Amino acid sequence: MAEIPVAPFERILKKAGADRTSEDGLVAIRDATEDYAKSLAKKSIVYAKHAGRKTIKAEDIKLALKP
Amino acid sequence: MAEIPVAPFERILKKAGADRTSEDGLVAIRDATEDYAKSLAKKSIVYAKHAGRKTIKAEDIKLALKP
Repeated sequence: MAEIPVAPFERILKKAGADRTSEDGLVAIRDATEDYAKSLAKKSIVYAKHAGRKTIKAEDIKLALKP
Repeated sequence: MAEIPVAPFERILKKAGADRTSEDGLVAIRDATEDYAKSLAKKSIVYAKHAGRKTIKAEDIKLALKP
């Protein structure tokens, strides 16, 4: 079950210069983006625990973004 | 201006096992994820054009996901 709706992706694609996006294209970019967010979430939870915290902070997300 | 709201990220983090996420943490994961979606959008537009189409399809997104 997806958490992020597809509507924001229609706007993101339009702003990036797309004329039109097919319905399956919108679902594909939503799913790929949500997978990315899930991966960031998992990493940031590990980093918060490592810092002795239960609350995820921006600094955990920033660390999760490092290659 | 962000297109994706923060609420879905609160659910994604909860499902991934987070007890709590700070407000700036939610904004950070939303912003990073939206940047990722923008990058996918730009690449997929190039691929659709390359295929002689104006409509972005799932196959363009899939190609944009390849490393």
